Amino acid sequence: MNNIVNSALFTDFYELTMAQGYWKRGINEHRVVFDYFFRRHPFSGGYSVFAGLGTLLEALENFHFSQDDLAYLETLDMFEKGFLDYLGNFKFSGDLLSAKEGELIFPQEPIVRVEGDLVQAQIVEGLVLNTLNFQSLIATKSARIWLASQKGKIMEFGLRRAQGSDGALSATRASFIGGAYGTSNTLAGKLYNLPVLGTMAHSWVMSYASELEAFKAYAEIYPKGATFLIDTYNTLESGITNAIAVGKDLEAKGYSFGVRLDSGDIDYLSRKVRERLDDAGFPDATIVVSNELDEAIIEHLIASNAPIDVWGVGTKLVTGGDDAAFTGVYKLAAMQSGASEKAVMKVSDNPEKSTNPGRKNVFRLFGECDTARLDIITLGDEKPEPGMEIVANHPSGDYRRLNIVPVKVEPLLSKVMEKGRKLENIPSLKESQDHFAGRLASFDTTYLRQLNPHLYKVSVSTKLRELKLGLIKKYMKTK
Amino acid sequence: MNNIVNSALFTDFYELTMAQGYWKRGINEHRVVFDYFFRRHPFSGGYSVFAGLGTLLEALENFHFSQDDLAYLETLDMFEKGFLDYLGNFKFSGDLLSAKEGELIFPQEPIVRVEGDLVQAQIVEGLVLNTLNFQSLIATKSARIWLASQKGKIMEFGLRRAQGSDGALSATRASFIGGAYGTSNTLAGKLYNLPVLGTMAHSWVMSYASELEAFKAYAEIYPKGATFLIDTYNTLESGITNAIAVGKDLEAKGYSFGVRLDSGDIDYLSRKVRERLDDAGFPDATIVVSNELDEAIIEHLIASNAPIDVWGVGTKLVTGGDDAAFTGVYKLAAMQSGASEKAVMKVSDNPEKSTNPGRKNVFRLFGECDTARLDIITLGDEKPEPGMEIVANHPSGDYRRLNIVPVKVEPLLSKVMEKGRKLENIPSLKESQDHFAGRLASFDTTYLRQLNPHLYKVSVSTKLRELKLGLIKKYMKTK
Repeated sequence: MNNIVNSALFTDFYELTMAQGYWKRGINEHRVVFDYFFRRHPFSGGYSVFAGLGTLLEALENFHFSQDDLAYLETLDMFEKGFLDYLGNFKFSGDLLSAKEGELIFPQEPIVRVEGDLVQAQIVEGLVLNTLNFQSLIATKSARIWLASQKGKIMEFGLRRAQGSDGALSATRASFIGGAYGTSNTLAGKLYNLPVLGTMAHSWVMSYASELEAFKAYAEIYPKGATFLIDTYNTLESGITNAIAVGKDLEAKGYSFGVRLDSGDIDYLSRKVRERLDDAGFPDATIVVSNELDEAIIEHLIASNAPIDVWGVGTKLVTGGDDAAFTGVYKLAAMQSGASEKAVMKVSDNPEKSTNPGRKNVFRLFGECDTARLDIITLGDEKPEPGMEIVANHPSGDYRRLNIVPVKVEPLLSKVMEKGRKLENIPSLKESQDHFAGRLASFDTTYLRQLNPHLYKVSVSTKLRELKLGLIKKYMKTK
Repeated sequence: MNNIVNSALFTDFYELTMAQGYWKRGINEHRVVFDYFFRRHPFSGGYSVFAGLGTLLEALENFHFSQDDLAYLETLDMFEKGFLDYLGNFKFSGDLLSAKEGELIFPQEPIVRVEGDLVQAQIVEGLVLNTLNFQSLIATKSARIWLASQKGKIMEFGLRRAQGSDGALSATRASFIGGAYGTSNTLAGKLYNLPVLGTMAHSWVMSYASELEAFKAYAEIYPKGATFLIDTYNTLESGITNAIAVGKDLEAKGYSFGVRLDSGDIDYLSRKVRERLDDAGFPDATIVVSNELDEAIIEHLIASNAPIDVWGVGTKLVTGGDDAAFTGVYKLAAMQSGASEKAVMKVSDNPEKSTNPGRKNVFRLFGECDTARLDIITLGDEKPEPGMEIVANHPSGDYRRLNIVPVKVEPLLSKVMEKGRKLENIPSLKESQDHFAGRLASFDTTYLRQLNPHLYKVSVSTKLRELKLGLIKKYMKTK
């Protein structure tokens, strides 16, 4: 099995009723441009990590109405035969420009630009939002956890507490992009070609007459990198003693080993266990910890120098914990008007909620030493160049601005799908993880702080600012 | 498509490594009993609502290792050919006893009892936990939201912010059990045979030259129960006026209508809109509201008598909001020992975390007027009867107890799967919703309070208490 959505019924019902309306008016094939963007970082953080594109592209290629789906719609008694026939031929045939998975992304900037016909672009709205919102939430959480561990080894352990089957699978994929190095989820390991990992359960230890016997039996079957769960009875009185005893046998055969703590005070126990391992001549034996970890607990353990080698993180990593949704939205930016294209925007009394009109791009401007200085959203074919003086306006449309001469300029969006077919240039998950890790080096650590981060600037070009102010003025007049 | 997991790779990797160990020892077919139970209610509430069983049973019937799955495991270079052949024949052939979906459930009591062979019962652990934890979380959230609305009309609108595709689909299913009356998720409507609902989008209104024209066009296509989105331009200056104008046309044709508010101050706007509708002679026109609602906001609006007819709830309903995981666990309670069965338990320094040993049942004891008084967990074939004096012991094993003579006794668990086949008696979703709604009447409202609820008692029988204390004593001695 895989978890790619292929039924185009995976859409909010009003998209279909409205689609029938557009179809009846004959405007269903009007070209439109939609932007996927978000409004605030989750977890009170200073950055987000983009993920989910690969899953989305695969789903878009397969999104269709089966005969069964059409038969279902017919039972609702709201759709005309002609319209259902039209849906029978539905296939997403639009273009996508997108940021790379693993990219550091910021509020307001278009992350994905969807161009297609009106009905197609509307019907895929739910799929786009569901896929990108969830995976970006989890990639961001994973990044926070990985950075808290000082780029340590994070094992994703969330299958049993994840929000449904795809909540587990997609979360594994996104965690990996955000820095996790493996997962306990075997199916995710297969689907995404990721390292699968695990230790042993308390029930294994309890199924033997003694802990020592349980460890010996395990070491015999899995001598390579055996990790003993040492907290079933008493970590310091029996667990570590038995692990060291069996570890000596393994050492004699040329194997190393590790131990896992899954309860109790991790700070205290990890130090005591480290001492015991070192005293027994096993400075290389690893310590794996787990038990309701999140970035705050990990940061604290790291700050107090707890000697931990591997972190098993479950619930909080795969659900986001107390921030369980990403605020991505999908808004119309331009639409066909006769033979030309008309920029449109949503005007709100709250300037943060007004959208940016038109067909846009985003560029990242770098200063010396490859340092990201700010992102700028541009209009049409505007293209900032290195050495050029760029005016970066505040996106709210007020008077704030700054001038910058970038040393390097990188476009964030590139074409990933053309006429409904994904292009060949889609990076692997490992490449996305590497892209993410590499990007971190360009960002001052003040932006990456877990609490009270410095605010990375997202600006708009003067041309975009003027278009926006013009449309607002026009709107205010007609209001 | 459906979202039923059928690959038995949907399991934590250690289940497979341990399974190979059990298989090599020849104990893989030993009979075991596992309990699914949970430790605390989510959302600081006083009750939880059980959901997910129907999904689980379907998945268990289909859970298997495909040739492709086995080929994948082979690449990991950790499994013997003989063991992979054994997995090739894997089929869950155990029995399940379970509470009904929609049941009000409480900490510590077994909600599902799984009996099967050791390897089967272990491999399905992740599936059981993932499915039941998520749907019970959402059914509980839905119940809280529905009760906050005073059993009003809740529309589930969460597709775009849900945690992945199954995060949306399973959430719809569970929301319905907890009281929601319909969904915007068309695929969920089809899969689960639920009412699908929707209004119109701002983009529909904006695609016309004027709001009035947009409403007229909509009413022409969908005259029956049309709901006009009135906040695109200005709710009180244009939206409600245009809705009333088109509503008059609809009335002339014999149709009623509604309006939807999706932004601004709902309390204020709903009152103003209600006045306008009443003044225009439309006391039956409905008001639908949405915009980041949860049970606290709804309770507040209800308390202030805001005139709202229908509630559209998305993100918080389908993710749980700030409580994104249900604390269900799956623990060994008994295992074969030679020809007989041995009760086992996990002993923890924290009495709340010690499990209840043995093959257990749960009964709900009712007093006069069909009032639920307490639940009691019993051992083996113990069966409390009406009129009998029952000793209900505190589950922690300490001295607290009370005596009760129930007027009515109901077992919570009944057999739902035998030898891997689900039985015919599985209720429909509508029946589960009805069961939930009916159950509420048996519980004093103090247990159902949103904040600081009264604690409903879960007790253990004297026989179970003695078994537990005996095992603890034995454990303490060997420790």
